[in-house]
Amino acid sequence: MSQASLIYNLSDPLELESGSKLNHVDISYETYGTLNKTKSNAILICHALSADAHVAQHPENKTKGWWDDLVGNGKAIDTKKYFVICSNTIGSCRGSTGPMSINKSTKKPYGLKLPVITIGDMVSAQEALLNHLNIETLFAVVGGSMGGMQALEWSIRFPSKVKRCIAIATTAKLSPQSLAFGAVGRNAITSDPEWHKGDYYAKEAPQKGLAIARMIGHITYLSEQGMLDKFGRNLQEKTDFGYDFSSDFQIESYLKYQGDKFMTFFDANAYLYLSRAMSYFDLEKKYKSLNKAFKKSESKFLILSISSDWLYPSKQSKEIVKSLMTLSKDVTYAEIDSPFGHDGFLLECKKIGKVVKPFLGN
Amino acid sequence: MSQASLIYNLSDPLELESGSKLNHVDISYETYGTLNKTKSNAILICHALSADAHVAQHPENKTKGWWDDLVGNGKAIDTKKYFVICSNTIGSCRGSTGPMSINKSTKKPYGLKLPVITIGDMVSAQEALLNHLNIETLFAVVGGSMGGMQALEWSIRFPSKVKRCIAIATTAKLSPQSLAFGAVGRNAITSDPEWHKGDYYAKEAPQKGLAIARMIGHITYLSEQGMLDKFGRNLQEKTDFGYDFSSDFQIESYLKYQGDKFMTFFDANAYLYLSRAMSYFDLEKKYKSLNKAFKKSESKFLILSISSDWLYPSKQSKEIVKSLMTLSKDVTYAEIDSPFGHDGFLLECKKIGKVVKPFLGN
Repeated sequence: MSQASLIYNLSDPLELESGSKLNHVDISYETYGTLNKTKSNAILICHALSADAHVAQHPENKTKGWWDDLVGNGKAIDTKKYFVICSNTIGSCRGSTGPMSINKSTKKPYGLKLPVITIGDMVSAQEALLNHLNIETLFAVVGGSMGGMQALEWSIRFPSKVKRCIAIATTAKLSPQSLAFGAVGRNAITSDPEWHKGDYYAKEAPQKGLAIARMIGHITYLSEQGMLDKFGRNLQEKTDFGYDFSSDFQIESYLKYQGDKFMTFFDANAYLYLSRAMSYFDLEKKYKSLNKAFKKSESKFLILSISSDWLYPSKQSKEIVKSLMTLSKDVTYAEIDSPFGHDGFLLECKKIGKVVKPFLGN
Repeated sequence: MSQASLIYNLSDPLELESGSKLNHVDISYETYGTLNKTKSNAILICHALSADAHVAQHPENKTKGWWDDLVGNGKAIDTKKYFVICSNTIGSCRGSTGPMSINKSTKKPYGLKLPVITIGDMVSAQEALLNHLNIETLFAVVGGSMGGMQALEWSIRFPSKVKRCIAIATTAKLSPQSLAFGAVGRNAITSDPEWHKGDYYAKEAPQKGLAIARMIGHITYLSEQGMLDKFGRNLQEKTDFGYDFSSDFQIESYLKYQGDKFMTFFDANAYLYLSRAMSYFDLEKKYKSLNKAFKKSESKFLILSISSDWLYPSKQSKEIVKSLMTLSKDVTYAEIDSPFGHDGFLLECKKIGKVVKPFLGN
């Protein structure tokens, strides 16, 4: 049955890809709908950089979820039909163990003493959660952006457990340009004097650096055309140039607003960990090639890209599709026509739902 | 005759587009070659954001100039034939009056008390310099990026003075996306606690914010393909992930290096002024339309864009060309085929020279 704000505390240490072991891992999660008797209707949803376990409105928590238009009663991912699980990734700051969590052996927040967390480690934590829930197979694993990376990793690491894999606006590895944007964002945080090498939890947080990182991120989440349509070169609250250094262009004000909002709910160290996890993610490097990566996978795949996404462009999705086709896997690909850039995976739920629903067999 | 490290101090106050007047303006400049008797061989070169008056090696200063492969003895812009003038723009920090200059009435650096400087104001200062040099007509005005904006403004404001206008990798106005990159860079500076609202000259400078701004800039100066060719996803000094927060990818190290280098020779407030000048630059807004802007221009135009430039993409150059063609102006356009992105205007001197030389009539 649907349950919000649950915490699962792993009894065993979690083995990480770096070789480290992480003790006392907490996983924050929510469930929606009811697991059927054959336990064959579970869908795991994996979130992106800034999100959390609250994927949709919940009987116990009416706040709008980050994929509210896709997940819920009668939606494309129908919680009347499926038992939906969404957990906060480890390394984040929204309930699961991350750099701001208390290290039980020192009684202090981890900060940078938390080992590096990879996309694979997030999946390992999710797998432990599913074991705890006695779910052996997933009807589907679904994710967008960083969530899509987790979905792909699931289908590779646990071939027989994943019946369907839906990966949206994602990539098998970041381009150097996307690496660069991530790197500059991380540098904005680590350059903030309040960062103190990650040991700031008893002091001021490096909010300004985090806001700059988020502003850089937002440029990459919007398309050029989308920016032009939405903001153009319009000035904010003025009809002519102010000839001063106040925030003048609407696009500036929008980015500042996004930066300021983000720092109220997100932890700067968690941003570093998740950004680094995405940068390290590289299926070709990890498995020697995409074909080797997907070779044993038994999932049906749905790969979706957003036409105007230049952060994880369609050509990167097509590389995944090409590999799956070479391996004669069951794969469907669609490019969602949208001016919203990478953000399209959150904003184009109606269009995404139209493909996801039949793929799930509704 | 060639002279390096000259300073011209304007006797009259400079009238700025904002309506303010700026007293005691210094203009740092260099000259190359010899002005002929009819004073008909002068070429003014306008520089981009981070450059200065030292456009090429000079008999009095053998340091390599920023356009050394294009300007000099026997080069496409041949200093045996032409009298070349290059001045540091006002608002900058490389010898001409800018925010770090001493305000003679207060005996303190201007900081943000310097009025906003526009591209048009830079041109006004250059025009005063040419008057001082008794040069009435320019054989050509040449510039790339922000320098190209000045070249266009010259041909519009002083129709009879400019015989030829060469504008490279530039635009009549920044796209919202380019505005956004500039805005985030400026925010990185103003978020640095060392910035002190621009009043930092007696203290530590906001070097970290300036370095972040420069890193953001450098991402936009390189093309995606150029980054892939040059850096790929290669790691720096390591063959495998370090699982730590040191600078790992080569692209990260490159950007950090560029950021660190920049803060040794550039002033953060000057960056704010010049970045803002480019953001404000909008020929359509200023002159009501491009056609109205160029209507009275008497120059022959050479418009060059770099094929992989996504900061000031070819389509923006083509808009200028289209307007000039509509007005039946004498215009030549070429797209320089290059993987170097916006940086191509500095790196593709050989290809640029092949078009510039015949355009100048050599």
